[in-house]
Amino acid sequence: MRTTLPEAFPAHTPAVPQIFTIVLSHGPVTRAEIARRAGVSPAAVTKAVRPLIEAGYLVEEAGEDLPPALGRPANALRVDGGRALFIGVKVTGDSAIAVLTDLRCRIRVTRRASLDDRSPDGVLATTGELVTELLVEAEGFGVQVRGIGFAVSGDVVRTDGTVRYSPFLDWRDVPLGERAAAATGLPVTVENDVRALTVAEQWFGAGAGLTDFALVTVGAGIGCGLVVGGRVVSGAHGVAGEIGHLSIDPTGPPCHCGNRGCVEAIASDPAIVREVRARTGIHVADAAEALALARGGDTAARQVYARAGEAIGRAIGSLVNLLGPERVIISGEGLAAHDLFADRIQDAFTVSAFGTAARCEVSTHPLPFEAWARGAAATAIQSFIGSDSRSGGSGWR
Amino acid sequence: MRTTLPEAFPAHTPAVPQIFTIVLSHGPVTRAEIARRAGVSPAAVTKAVRPLIEAGYLVEEAGEDLPPALGRPANALRVDGGRALFIGVKVTGDSAIAVLTDLRCRIRVTRRASLDDRSPDGVLATTGELVTELLVEAEGFGVQVRGIGFAVSGDVVRTDGTVRYSPFLDWRDVPLGERAAAATGLPVTVENDVRALTVAEQWFGAGAGLTDFALVTVGAGIGCGLVVGGRVVSGAHGVAGEIGHLSIDPTGPPCHCGNRGCVEAIASDPAIVREVRARTGIHVADAAEALALARGGDTAARQVYARAGEAIGRAIGSLVNLLGPERVIISGEGLAAHDLFADRIQDAFTVSAFGTAARCEVSTHPLPFEAWARGAAATAIQSFIGSDSRSGGSGWR
Ligand SMILES: [Zn+2]
Ligand SMILES: [Zn+2]
Repeated sequence: MRTTLPEAFPAHTPAVPQIFTIVLSHGPVTRAEIARRAGVSPAAVTKAVRPLIEAGYLVEEAGEDLPPALGRPANALRVDGGRALFIGVKVTGDSAIAVLTDLRCRIRVTRRASLDDRSPDGVLATTGELVTELLVEAEGFGVQVRGIGFAVSGDVVRTDGTVRYSPFLDWRDVPLGERAAAATGLPVTVENDVRALTVAEQWFGAGAGLTDFALVTVGAGIGCGLVVGGRVVSGAHGVAGEIGHLSIDPTGPPCHCGNRGCVEAIASDPAIVREVRARTGIHVADAAEALALARGGDTAARQVYARAGEAIGRAIGSLVNLLGPERVIISGEGLAAHDLFADRIQDAFTVSAFGTAARCEVSTHPLPFEAWARGAAATAIQSFIGSDSRSGGSGWR
Repeated sequence: MRTTLPEAFPAHTPAVPQIFTIVLSHGPVTRAEIARRAGVSPAAVTKAVRPLIEAGYLVEEAGEDLPPALGRPANALRVDGGRALFIGVKVTGDSAIAVLTDLRCRIRVTRRASLDDRSPDGVLATTGELVTELLVEAEGFGVQVRGIGFAVSGDVVRTDGTVRYSPFLDWRDVPLGERAAAATGLPVTVENDVRALTVAEQWFGAGAGLTDFALVTVGAGIGCGLVVGGRVVSGAHGVAGEIGHLSIDPTGPPCHCGNRGCVEAIASDPAIVREVRARTGIHVADAAEALALARGGDTAARQVYARAGEAIGRAIGSLVNLLGPERVIISGEGLAAHDLFADRIQDAFTVSAFGTAARCEVSTHPLPFEAWARGAAATAIQSFIGSDSRSGGSGWR
């Protein structure tokens, strides 16, 4: 029966995506609370949600002691997660992971494949197979997949789906969105991976309910998603959140960006591996071996992690002094070394934070690797409901 | 006749302040253009502006070849600057300056007084005299003063008018807004001075029309106002834009904030004076003497300015890597030394900026000292029209 409902999301006015997003993040939520959060009148909310209820995207929760049939406006609203499906794909330098999620971004199925060929053709072939598998899985739910999101590290132009530059993939100016849409026949959203993860955290994760927070990811690179005034910052020229390239020491190690003393040149996995080799003379193969050496008690290796923690903490201090967020969430696969640098991050942050900015809570939040793909699905949901704020967030407000 | 018009600004819906602000910054502007910028329907604009026209705050511009009497909706709207007056007061460590502005923040009268007593009582006495003089001047215009804005450096809580901490005045937890309102009987807005200046630049200055820009002020301190997604960032805990306390060198000079290598500890006027004395052995009395020495060709003094420029440029690089603004405007009384450090700012910024973030335009914009007081008046206008965005900008959106 659901397949006979209208295809397009009924976003008739600019307020609809905003209201839908509030229900998505905060539901079940009453119309009065939606009105308060959106800064619009309750009457405007009632008008905006009616077509969403009719189209099955929102459902009324029964009041605790009221029969649901009354459908009183005091009843809370929530999103019917089962109303639509989405696919999120995260591409790294050596693998691709894809998830099938519902409209509430809950993961239903996960698929993963190694990536031997990083060229655009190779990535499109590998991810195309994953998407095809998930489309078959989706048939079992009897609900349509309404969009696909791709999350790629680097400089991504969301508005036209182009990957302008991705160092890990060695791509320049790849029209990924256009090619994937042509291959699948579905709407495709392409977003920077950290920004995509930030959207998911803002809607459903450690940033839910916060209007100002930062998500710092540590690992192969050091990235950052910023939410300011409730919106993900994307930068006037496509670059934002490059906390990895904050230089904290003019005499620090050279960075691939051309500058010296960048956080990424001190605290990323490759930088740590390089420095552990240099200080210990032991040719550790990768981050896991470097970590094992430090955990085993090697003093020089432990100092490398301490220095990395200090760099991350000082950069977070800079971020907090500029933006004064409520919370900074540290995540990413580099958190595996959490025990070795967490105290140093906190200490360096405390020294760096100015005045009341120090009240900002700095916490760690491990994320499973599939969370990156879920972030990609979140951007597809954003696009579907029309709440993707383009060009730095002026968007539909 | 105007005195018989309603006292309060007719902001019946949350859209009214937003629409009025658009006309204030971009007028004369058509209803269609307002609708596009506000992301609301043209019908909503027509409905919102009607009471503003009736109350005399907005006026219709005649179409170029249409008689004005037709009042067609296609006619552009502009703010009638003469409809209301405001007072802005800037307090520094040694003087107070006050301006009388109209509703379009055009300065009508300026008054200045030296400040011998920096205590709250002393400041209230001195500024009270300036305000009284301006209220007398206002009578000559036949229009009421509708609000007063105070701009104070430091940690200011706009929502309750408290100066939590101001190092230059040596104030802690001073209820300036409450006391000034009691003394004058007028609504009082208290804001951090750099944020106040940023509001004026956003509405009428070098930031007009930009949704993402930064205003960096150099001089006695190094501050920064940030506009992200069209709104001035104020921080979840009251602190934001503290670019002066970005540490760019872990072995740099100690800063009064407790950290080392802060930009303010290298590039503020007191830091420059201290370093010029240390390097030249000449006991320059102040920034003007230090500047004269460097301009006279003293190599060591010139190096101090070059180092200051490099620090400012590196900090702007950090800011731009995080936020990716369209423009960074450097201003403040420290620009007097512009010829000595401008090239170094640009060079250090270019080295620091990551990828396309380097496309951000870094420019200088000298401001007369009264511009700070004008910024204070701009916050009073914000409060009057109900567009002051509280708690980090979630505000009336
Ligand atoms: Zn770098
Ligand atoms: Zn400092």
